[in-house]
Formats: sequence, C-alpha cells, structure tokens
Amino acid sequence: MALLMDHQFKQLPADKQVETRSFLESVSYLPPFFDCLGSTVFAPIKADIAGNITKIKAVYDSNPSRFKTLHQILEAEKEMYGTEWPKVGATLALMWLKRGLRFIQVLLQSLVDGERDDNNPNLIRVNVTKAYEIALKKYHGWLVQKLFQAALFAAPYRSDFLKALAKGREVKEEDCLEKVRQFLVNFTVTVDAIYEMYTKMNAELEYKV
Amino acid sequence: MALLMDHQFKQLPADKQVETRSFLESVSYLPPFFDCLGSTVFAPIKADIAGNITKIKAVYDSNPSRFKTLHQILEAEKEMYGTEWPKVGATLALMWLKRGLRFIQVLLQSLVDGERDDNNPNLIRVNVTKAYEIALKKYHGWLVQKLFQAALFAAPYRSDFLKALAKGREVKEEDCLEKVRQFLVNFTVTVDAIYEMYTKMNAELEYKV
Ligand SMILES: CCCCCCCCCCCCC/C=C/[C@@H](O)[C@H](CO[C@@H]1O[C@H](CO)[C@H](O)[C@H](OS(=O)(=O)O)[C@H]1O)NC(=O)CCCCCCCCCCC
Ligand SMILES: CCCCCCCCCCCCC/C=C/[C@@H](O)[C@H](CO[C@@H]1O[C@H](CO)[C@H](O)[C@H](OS(=O)(=O)O)[C@H]1O)NC(=O)CCCCCCCCCCC
Repeated sequence: MALLMDHQFKQLPADKQVETRSFLESVSYLPPFFDCLGSTVFAPIKADIAGNITKIKAVYDSNPSRFKTLHQILEAEKEMYGTEWPKVGATLALMWLKRGLRFIQVLLQSLVDGERDDNNPNLIRVNVTKAYEIALKKYHGWLVQKLFQAALFAAPYRSDFLKALAKGREVKEEDCLEKVRQFLVNFTVTVDAIYEMYTKMNAELEYKV
Repeated sequence: MALLMDHQFKQLPADKQVETRSFLESVSYLPPFFDCLGSTVFAPIKADIAGNITKIKAVYDSNPSRFKTLHQILEAEKEMYGTEWPKVGATLALMWLKRGLRFIQVLLQSLVDGERDDNNPNLIRVNVTKAYEIALKKYHGWLVQKLFQAALFAAPYRSDFLKALAKGREVKEEDCLEKVRQFLVNFTVTVDAIYEMYTKMNAELEYKV
C-alpha cells in the first residue's frame, strides 16, 4: 500500500478548513494512482489531474501566507475575478480536481465494501462505473461518456489493481484492503469538506465538457 | 490561413538534412492545429504532440551545435543508449511526432484534393479516417482504435474547419485551399525525409499502444 498509505491526508481541524500546503503535498501523490490502472489510455486523465494540481500550486506559491487555506484562495479569487469567477483560476482547477478525488474515493470505498459483479468477481467495472456515475458523468457530454465506456475495457483486474496499489510490497488482499480503509478516513473527510465549501460559496458549476 | 501559412516549413537542402532549430520552430505552431478541430476531446492529442516537441527541444537545447540536424540527434542517441535505443529519448519522441505530422499532412492533402463523401459533403470524416489509417492505425491497439472511432464524431464540419485554419481572416474557401496547398509543399518533403531517415537507420518500431 506504498502509494496511498505513505501519504495519508491530514486530519482536518474542527472548523474543517483545509490547509493548502499539506493538501497539495498529499494530492501530489495521486496522479501515479492512474498508472495503477495499467493502460496508456489513462495518461490523459493523469495529465488533466496533474494540471489541476500545478495550477493550484502556482497560485499558492505566489503568496503562501495569503493562501494558507483552500477557502482563502476561493475568497481571494472571487474578489479578484468578478463575474468571470468561478470558471477561472485555482477555483476552476479545484472544482475539477475534487471530482477526480471523489472518483478515486468512491472507487476505493466500493472496493473495500466488497461490492462486486458476482459473475465476474475479478473485474472492477462495477466499482469504476459507480465512481464515474457519482463523480463525473453529469459533467460529461455524450461523447466523453462514450469514451469512458470504451476506456472501461482497459480497467485492470481487481487482483492486479490491488497489487499495483501495494506497489511491490508483498501483502495479502485483506491487509491491502485494511490499509485502503485507513487511507479513506481522512481522505473522505477532506473531499467532503471541499464539496461543502463549493456549495456554500456557490462556486459549483454544472457545465458539461 | 494564419495558423499554418505564417509558419511555413523551410525548404530542405539537397542532402535532405532537417535542421533541428528551424524544424522545432515550425512544428511549435502545430499543436494549436488541434484546437481547430474544436472539441476538448482533442486536448490529450495536442498534449501528446506538445510533449514530443518539448522532449526533442530539451535534447537540442542541451547542446545546439552537436544536435544541429535531426540526424545528428538520432546518431548520438544510438551511440549513447545502446540496446535501449530507439525506444528512448528524442528518437522515440520524434518517432511518434512524425506520425502526428503525417496525420496532419494526409488530412490536409485529402482536403485540397477534394476527396469527400458525396452524401455528406460538409463532413471531413472520410478525410480524417484516411489520415488515421495511413498514419496511426497500425500503431494503435483495438481499444485506442475504438476511442478514435468515438472521437471521430467530434470532428468539425468541413466549412468550420477551413475557417478555423484561416483563423479569423475573411477568406474564400478556394483561397484557403490554395494556401494549404502551398503549405503542404515543404511540409510534405520534410515529413517524408524524417520517415526515410527512420527507415534507413532502422529506427522505426511497430509496437502498439
Ligand atoms: C487517436 C485516438 C483518438 C482518441 C481521442 C480520445 C480523446 C479522449 C479524451 C478524454 C478526456 C480525458 C479526460 C479529461 C477530461 C476533461 O475535459 C475534463 C475537464 O477538464 C477541465 O476543464 C476545465 C475547462 O473546462 C479546465 O481546463 C480544467 O483545468 S484547469 O486546471 O486549467 O482549470 C480541466 O481539468 N476533466 C475531467 O473530466 C476530470 C477527469 C477525472 C477523471 C477521473 C477518472 C476517470 C477514470 C476512468 C476509468 C475508466
Ligand atoms: C472519463 C473519460 C475517460 C475517457 C478516457 C479516454 C482516454 C483516451 C486516450 C486517447 C489517447 C490520446 C492519444 C495519445 C496516444 C498515445 O498513447 C500515443 C503514443 O504516445 C507516445 O508513447 C510513447 C511511449 O510508448 C512516448 O510516451 C511518447 O512520448 S515521448 O515524447 O515521451 O517519447 C508518446 O508520444 N500517441 C499517438 O498515438 C500520437 C497521436 C497523434 C494523434 C494525431 C491525431 C488524431 C486525431 C483524431 C481525430 C479524430
């Protein structure tokens, strides 16, 4: 479980503010997650997410003390960009990034919950599809949805995927799942907090790509 | 015809050597070509090609006088990388880049030659498909081929595509096509020369992604 477990998300404080620095540090380990899926087909997705992270990091680095929390970034950009906001800057990058994070979270949760297709117990298509439907589908036009359906065929076997997450370490499936469960605790709380912030600030957009 | 015509490829010398500096300068204007296709779906393709160019440029910049021609890059890397070569470095990047260039060349040539689907004269699917079959299909596994077929639905109308190539300038279709014809002269010779170099140096690989 090298990949995820060595880079757990921090526990959030009572006020649910997400610190930009540690958030960026933790998410920077996620793009390699898409390498675990095995196929070159996922490279553009990895690149899209890595691009989001780069964009948020650039804003943070421009003034770390001003942008100490994600909330401060959204507030500052709202002020700065006027009517262009929220389809702009780090606000837009985080809007999409959080959907990718939700996708990863729902997929992992569904795996640890043991959801499977009984006819194909070693496939993860049901889990991937569930994650896609919850996190992304409504933001994709019919063409990207069609591409998703095709890309689904490139999803790895369950056993290979779990091994890839464990990255070389010899672990039993149950140990691996237990570590994923641990990882999900702070990760889920963080993703939830970001979604809540977008709702409260009226920063969520429904447009499709 | 702003996009292509303002950045013609240089005429090659008699020995058909392609100068790295001017080649990189000319190809750097090509990734925006994929914006002309209109859809966000082509962003990963644009990124893939831009990545190839960045990789070749990094090698060139490391020693411009040593890497004056593309041929000198391949020779140096062959020496340097041993059995890893040619699936490595700028040699690999140019191997894929030339396929993207061939795709663009065949597509434009097919348009200026007036090839069309008589039942759908304003679609460019026949032209895009021809370019794909000649330049890329054999290097793609069934999944990427399937993705291509889906992406084809995002191809723009012929009239919109020609307008996009002309980028804002008011031009008649015939004027636009004439400029594409001019652009194709040195472009085609350059792409042909690169293919020939890969064949002669035994640097072409047939693996599929
Ligand atoms: C020759 C062959 C031809 C084939 C051509 C096929 C091309 C296929 C293209 C597929 C699209 C790849 C996925 C990327 C989709 C992206 O379009 C969307 C929106 O992307 C956002 O767009 C914004 C502007 O609207 C900003 O630019 C954001 O950027 S900004 O930072 O600048 O603000 C950017 O992230 N991101 C998304 O939908 C996010 C995707 C997360 C994916 C999560 C995992 C899904 C896993 C699926 C597993 C089965
Ligand atoms: C949530 C939704 C999920 C949806 C997910 C869908 C994802 C779809 C992914 C589609 C693939 C996008 C195209 C990219 C394909 C690339 O895989 C290939 C090989 O790419 C090469 O690979 C090498 C290693 O083998 C090196 O990394 C090269 O990189 S290196 O520089 O490091 O050496 C790299 O270019 N390039 C290609 O096939 C070249 C493509 C040129 C395209 C030309 C135009 C086609 C136009 C079609 C118009 C209809």
